[in-house]
Amino acid sequence: MADERRVLGIDPGSVRTGFGIIAVDGVRSRYVASGVIQAGRGAFAERLHTIFTSLAAVIAEHGPTESAVEEVFVNRNVQSALKLGQARGAAICACASAGLAVDEYSARAVKQALVGRGGADKDQVGYMVRTILTLKGDLREDAADALAVALTHVQHDRLTAQLAGQSRGGAT
Amino acid sequence: MADERRVLGIDPGSVRTGFGIIAVDGVRSRYVASGVIQAGRGAFAERLHTIFTSLAAVIAEHGPTESAVEEVFVNRNVQSALKLGQARGAAICACASAGLAVDEYSARAVKQALVGRGGADKDQVGYMVRTILTLKGDLREDAADALAVALTHVQHDRLTAQLAGQSRGGAT
Repeated sequence: MADERRVLGIDPGSVRTGFGIIAVDGVRSRYVASGVIQAGRGAFAERLHTIFTSLAAVIAEHGPTESAVEEVFVNRNVQSALKLGQARGAAICACASAGLAVDEYSARAVKQALVGRGGADKDQVGYMVRTILTLKGDLREDAADALAVALTHVQHDRLTAQLAGQSRGGAT
Repeated sequence: MADERRVLGIDPGSVRTGFGIIAVDGVRSRYVASGVIQAGRGAFAERLHTIFTSLAAVIAEHGPTESAVEEVFVNRNVQSALKLGQARGAAICACASAGLAVDEYSARAVKQALVGRGGADKDQVGYMVRTILTLKGDLREDAADALAVALTHVQHDRLTAQLAGQSRGGAT
């Protein structure tokens, strides 16, 4: 178990931050934990600190070996982007402070990886997360999105390894 | 010296983050330290971690008792706002993690406090920072901006205390 890969996926937000942890066992991914951090409605600095310390506690409890964050595209106004950026900054600092590598994946890449189509809707992503991880019952949207990013990271690594293997095979 | 107030001012940015520390001695403010953290050009998560750990080191070395961050207004595009937001998030987490209260001041409030005019230009702010703190020689712009935020915080506290004193006086 000491060598088990565990991926922490994060869907950051200034109000709610979803997190999800999966364990990677060969070609299978297993659900470990997920949840939603409520940053509250207090002063902005306190909210960021809540995100930071809550994620630090999640990392301490579940011991992920790497992390992945959704690379948001914001097409709303700059103030929304600034707030979301601050939440992402807090989340990424929590991971980096724990020594975890942080990879980023666009929402499009997540949809492509899980549903096979970059334009898929959120419900389809949530459905695929529950199917792949054989989860029964409801899963909050932010938690599902976080697990989706973690699964995307695992798939991305696997494809990269396969491609590296093929190119080595072709060169001999 | 143990009870001395020390204010850490921060001017966050995704490439350069200015910091400045002043000590408050009665009605006088004294320069303690300032500098610019270069976040580098590496992966974005590494840059945020550099901001976080560098500020944590500054806090550990100089022991500020409170902090103030410039509350930026971004009128450029959303991607710039997102990046700046992440840098601010990292900076605020560094302060909050060290147990410092974090206050925010708009660029306009800083100019008003130091120059007496919200529309003042940056050169005037830098000149006033050097004058108030009796600094000789050059001061990098990001460091000057950070010291300006710290000075604004001190002035804001003083005015608030004066107003509270006046309203108490008026009530008797």
